[in-house]
Amino acid sequence: MNELLHRASGRHNRFLRALKRLPVDTTPVWIMRQAGRYLPEYRATRERAGSFMNLCRSPELACEVTMQPIDRFDLDAAILFSDILTIPDAMGLGLDFVEGEGPRFARPIRSVDAINDLRVPDPLTSLRYVPDAVRTIRNALGGRVPLIGFAGSPWTLACYMVEGGPSERFAHIKQLMWDRPEALTRLLRVLTDSVREYLLAQADAGAQVLMLFDSWGGILAPEDYRRFSLPSLAELAASLRRDDLPVIVFSRGANTHLDALSQVGADALGLDWSIGLGDARRQTQDRIALQGNLDPAALYASPEALRNLVRRTLFDYGIGSGHIFNLGHGITPDVNPEQVRVLVETVHGA
Amino acid sequence: MNELLHRASGRHNRFLRALKRLPVDTTPVWIMRQAGRYLPEYRATRERAGSFMNLCRSPELACEVTMQPIDRFDLDAAILFSDILTIPDAMGLGLDFVEGEGPRFARPIRSVDAINDLRVPDPLTSLRYVPDAVRTIRNALGGRVPLIGFAGSPWTLACYMVEGGPSERFAHIKQLMWDRPEALTRLLRVLTDSVREYLLAQADAGAQVLMLFDSWGGILAPEDYRRFSLPSLAELAASLRRDDLPVIVFSRGANTHLDALSQVGADALGLDWSIGLGDARRQTQDRIALQGNLDPAALYASPEALRNLVRRTLFDYGIGSGHIFNLGHGITPDVNPEQVRVLVETVHGA
Repeated sequence: MNELLHRASGRHNRFLRALKRLPVDTTPVWIMRQAGRYLPEYRATRERAGSFMNLCRSPELACEVTMQPIDRFDLDAAILFSDILTIPDAMGLGLDFVEGEGPRFARPIRSVDAINDLRVPDPLTSLRYVPDAVRTIRNALGGRVPLIGFAGSPWTLACYMVEGGPSERFAHIKQLMWDRPEALTRLLRVLTDSVREYLLAQADAGAQVLMLFDSWGGILAPEDYRRFSLPSLAELAASLRRDDLPVIVFSRGANTHLDALSQVGADALGLDWSIGLGDARRQTQDRIALQGNLDPAALYASPEALRNLVRRTLFDYGIGSGHIFNLGHGITPDVNPEQVRVLVETVHGA
Repeated sequence: MNELLHRASGRHNRFLRALKRLPVDTTPVWIMRQAGRYLPEYRATRERAGSFMNLCRSPELACEVTMQPIDRFDLDAAILFSDILTIPDAMGLGLDFVEGEGPRFARPIRSVDAINDLRVPDPLTSLRYVPDAVRTIRNALGGRVPLIGFAGSPWTLACYMVEGGPSERFAHIKQLMWDRPEALTRLLRVLTDSVREYLLAQADAGAQVLMLFDSWGGILAPEDYRRFSLPSLAELAASLRRDDLPVIVFSRGANTHLDALSQVGADALGLDWSIGLGDARRQTQDRIALQGNLDPAALYASPEALRNLVRRTLFDYGIGSGHIFNLGHGITPDVNPEQVRVLVETVHGA
């Protein structure tokens, strides 16, 4: 983190400094899914790629879309363009994206035998396109802003792998959790090892910050969360931190666990908009930076109302460094990109 | 509430007594959507009715399905079979249920003029089938268990009316909320008056407990929740309580607001499973009874695991009356009805 010592301000350092709660010239901002369908230039590249997975698997195209929002807006971080399901795909589950339906696995995990057969994928062979993309993007960024690498959390990957895709009821994974807890624990073990190897490979290739997306943490009752989601998040955060890599944990809908999450060893916690940043800050006792948490629907409001909502979020966090402005969930495809400019300018100008 | 004085225990009184946190012989239990598609006898009646709204609009058929789970299981309360969207339907929005897609309004509210044109529907004319169903059901119940009447919260009804049906992004209602807050306030005013008249008509017809479903409270940031969802819940709860009617408020996903919700004047708070009952009890300082909160997916587990999960929920609430056992969300259609028997017997036998 020597780069932090060079300059107390400016686009390159804001994000890394806020992660460490060092003074910043203005609140840094990036946006979940900032490289995405709301941008016409993204839609053009996506069409050229033919499929979503082709886009992820091509380091050149992944770099192209990663750079698009950085070129267009004054954002303070870039995030690798990829998907959280690359790991199960590399494990042989056969990932496909069905238009309008989301991800689908051809071979979901539905037996203990299938769990026992899973192996940690080598991030330098079957997942090599990911560190390759990281290197390509770092090169294209040329130090303008830091690059975030990421992975799904073990619990969230397990949900997708057992359900076979997005789910409303999560009947299969919960049946496994309650009827065969030892099998789920084994699945989480191989996934935790896989995620660590994968994130370390991204860091080796140049990712400067690592983020864990625990998208389905919030579907669990507290006792199940503490048993099946939290421990692998804590293990990964602690292990990455030992390697001096800044970590952001986003456990969606897990507001009941903010106190525990603030003690897993991460540098920042992502938050959705169902809790106020001031409230979250009190609950986490200023132990950790907070990332979030504007409702993405704010981008549908008038520019004037949007500015007020951005300022409300900044005001709610309050005085002192440690806030990374973001939405509380990914930006939606039908948003007018000009609204993103209004958001970013308001964050920086406030 | 004189009936409470007669007997300290037994199927008829448990639920009403737990609502008032009076001693009970065992924890009362009912299940959200207990009259529903998981029951073969429900599916048969539903088919005879032709459509979901025909089923709601026929007092005889609504009574038939309301009674089915009461006849089958040792449940401690019946709940009127109806839908929260009867009010907007009676306001002229043209409600229809599309198979597999949920409710749709032919004429959603998309202008301030449309809001200004809305009138409080007379519950004894356009909604007469609802109090008629309540009377028919009370008669069929013959005092076996109390009958719950219900309505959607003003905020939740506003969401459906403006979006036109279920929504993922809630772009229209949030645009209205942020760009024309005074128009939304007017919409909530007419809905609050409508819900009060509607619930009073249900009570006059024989409903002994009234429940407000704020299904979409949780999509709001705290400041918006306090401005657009909480006030009408509080106004309704206080006004119904003045008439000595027990009130249950279920504001889904609004765990950030438990302290405020416990002070609106309701008798009980419904909870989903994202928070522990013990934790919720501490946060609400034992001011109010708690209803919930088993994950509905527990019904997919083995009978043995299900029993453990039921006991975990009971244990989490702890000692003392004031717990009404329920799921944290409606029962799902593909559940084996025998699992409901396991659940109910475990609650009563614990």
